[in-house]
Amino acid sequence: MALIVQKYGGTSVGDVERIENVAKKVITARDAGDDVIVVVSAMSGETNRLIGLAAQISEHPDPREMDVLVSTGEQVTIALLSMALNKRGYPARSYTGTQVHIRTDSAFTKARIMDIDEAKVRADLDAGRVVVVAGFQGVDEVGNITTLGRGGSDTTAVALAAALKADECQIYTDVDGVYTTDPRVVPSARRLERITFEEMLEMASLGSKVLQIRSVEFAGKYNVPLRVLSSFKDGPGTLISYEEQTMEQPVISGIAFNRDEAKLTIQGVPDQPGVAFNILGPVSAANIEVDMIIQNVGADGTTDFTFTVHRNDYPKALKILEQVSRELGAREVNGDTSIVKISLVGVGMRSHAGVASKMFEALSKEGINIRMISTSEIKISVVVDEKYLELGVRALHSAFDLEQKATE
Amino acid sequence: MALIVQKYGGTSVGDVERIENVAKKVITARDAGDDVIVVVSAMSGETNRLIGLAAQISEHPDPREMDVLVSTGEQVTIALLSMALNKRGYPARSYTGTQVHIRTDSAFTKARIMDIDEAKVRADLDAGRVVVVAGFQGVDEVGNITTLGRGGSDTTAVALAAALKADECQIYTDVDGVYTTDPRVVPSARRLERITFEEMLEMASLGSKVLQIRSVEFAGKYNVPLRVLSSFKDGPGTLISYEEQTMEQPVISGIAFNRDEAKLTIQGVPDQPGVAFNILGPVSAANIEVDMIIQNVGADGTTDFTFTVHRNDYPKALKILEQVSRELGAREVNGDTSIVKISLVGVGMRSHAGVASKMFEALSKEGINIRMISTSEIKISVVVDEKYLELGVRALHSAFDLEQKATE
Repeated sequence: MALIVQKYGGTSVGDVERIENVAKKVITARDAGDDVIVVVSAMSGETNRLIGLAAQISEHPDPREMDVLVSTGEQVTIALLSMALNKRGYPARSYTGTQVHIRTDSAFTKARIMDIDEAKVRADLDAGRVVVVAGFQGVDEVGNITTLGRGGSDTTAVALAAALKADECQIYTDVDGVYTTDPRVVPSARRLERITFEEMLEMASLGSKVLQIRSVEFAGKYNVPLRVLSSFKDGPGTLISYEEQTMEQPVISGIAFNRDEAKLTIQGVPDQPGVAFNILGPVSAANIEVDMIIQNVGADGTTDFTFTVHRNDYPKALKILEQVSRELGAREVNGDTSIVKISLVGVGMRSHAGVASKMFEALSKEGINIRMISTSEIKISVVVDEKYLELGVRALHSAFDLEQKATE
Repeated sequence: MALIVQKYGGTSVGDVERIENVAKKVITARDAGDDVIVVVSAMSGETNRLIGLAAQISEHPDPREMDVLVSTGEQVTIALLSMALNKRGYPARSYTGTQVHIRTDSAFTKARIMDIDEAKVRADLDAGRVVVVAGFQGVDEVGNITTLGRGGSDTTAVALAAALKADECQIYTDVDGVYTTDPRVVPSARRLERITFEEMLEMASLGSKVLQIRSVEFAGKYNVPLRVLSSFKDGPGTLISYEEQTMEQPVISGIAFNRDEAKLTIQGVPDQPGVAFNILGPVSAANIEVDMIIQNVGADGTTDFTFTVHRNDYPKALKILEQVSRELGAREVNGDTSIVKISLVGVGMRSHAGVASKMFEALSKEGINIRMISTSEIKISVVVDEKYLELGVRALHSAFDLEQKATE
């Protein structure tokens, strides 16, 4: 008998019929002899409806009251799911974040979980009940309702799994697992049986938006095995856990890509100490997040400095950079919004030389010009022209043997 | 500087514009120097929407979960109203029933308030904040969310007013006060400046559905002055308080009526001890509420027994009575659903003889036949044919001088 935490997102509980369907999935686990804690989000559309009401009243609604407002969304779902379980003869009890003491700091609308009082949940599980918990919400030290920020239900599930030392935390979504890359780009993309936390973090932050990054970090930190599954289709999903020594690790687990970036370059900057800070300081001060950063020293005592930002931030960043350029006496500033980033991710590359060269070879064979390169321990990213996205991803998917195996 | 509790029902907070309007009313009181606690209901339609969701899942949803579900309705309103006040520079803070410790028993969907921890509210008031409390809900000893049953927001307001010894509890509704009778029946009906708790109880239970009976009882018990006002129209409303000795009390305060009753008679019952119980026992066992009861002893050692029930319960009550009739060897059973009850209410009738005879005279002058009579200390009720309702009420309204005064 295992203890399982299951989390169902807004789409999975989008209407009464889907909530009934979730009840059936919970019952399958109960019938298999497992203890189950279920974490649910608001019914899809509900959070936006509530935010819309607030927007009618104020452009900048009071954050404390915002949390009181939007936390009602999950509260509706926990009640309905518990009713559906009770109706079927499976005793269930719902809890809001306040009731189950998901204690957070007081950073309204983006609170962080401090700790969870697991005694209440444990008592219900011992009494044979399914425990249904409102995701995304908590309570601060003085009893104010808080929310964890959008998508925080994943974090609630992982936190509960960690506090109760659950055997597995299952995140039900509208996809049936983590794929080697986006199947819309590479139809032969393969569902991964397993992936490590580190790989998943790289995949998630690079645009494979299956899981919230924070919840993956959290699961890694507390060593909670995470499983991504589909709410609508049966299957084993993808298990996210730590690397096992005995497990034969493929060199590359997957290929992530990101179409949302833009690239900015400042050329011919007199090369002197502090140049990087002088360039990025004003960008960061404007709350613009920077992703890749590359600096090359030129021959004439000047340097070229390139970085990428989200495309939405491009016009603002360009304006700042032009001002910086004048101040630093740089030669020129230019940018490009028609680029994409493609990344190979895999813990296996740690111990395998030659991944980078194989990557560059595969791209070169297709005549794809690489505009930027950036590497980390388990990831190599390149920036290429937007038009090469599909071609590049497919070439790499094939070069690294990620295709669907006939035997699977 | 007074402490005022204001309560706004679902219609008064039915949309964002109306919530903004409530904020303005609260601000008027603040600007006048008063401390204000506001109790609000769910936006009109919201509670029914939530109940509809539950009904899709189960015919008999778990009562505990029902309360978790419907209590979200008021939670939305408190957040929105607090935002509207904060936006206007009037600091406000919202509280759910759980947060402000409106402690109730555990009778889900119809809980009763045990006590209120006023410290939190007092601290906010002292800090110059408006306190916005979710009506209709509370929390039991172990932290379960409870609701007080439909319309319970009035009770929340009165309970808060009692706990904090407020100077007045103002109930904002869609009428501008309590009238001598229904203005749709008697256009010259007059708004009462004042009415006593006892009179209000008789008026409310007789069909003038301005206030919830329970909240009037509660206000009377804790001597909380209640004022009924309109959310949509300025005016002093009607003050409900205890009778003041110095106040010249009119004999009759108002005329209530009820179109929802039906009358049942069992005739020729052998008159022996226990006959009333033998007849009403089975009716009450079927959860049918009985209003008026009259028994006359006949000449032949038998008795006639008549009572009234809600029209919805009539077919069920008739069936039971036919069974009882056979068992008791009664002569016959008959009933009538085309009746109405008209009642004169007034604490003044305690000390004035002749109210009953004046009433009967006024009805007789119009040729209205009285089918039943029942009296209490401050009320006389008669049952007449449905068709005489308007005529009867108008005749009495005029006979007892209740018309709008030209000077008012």
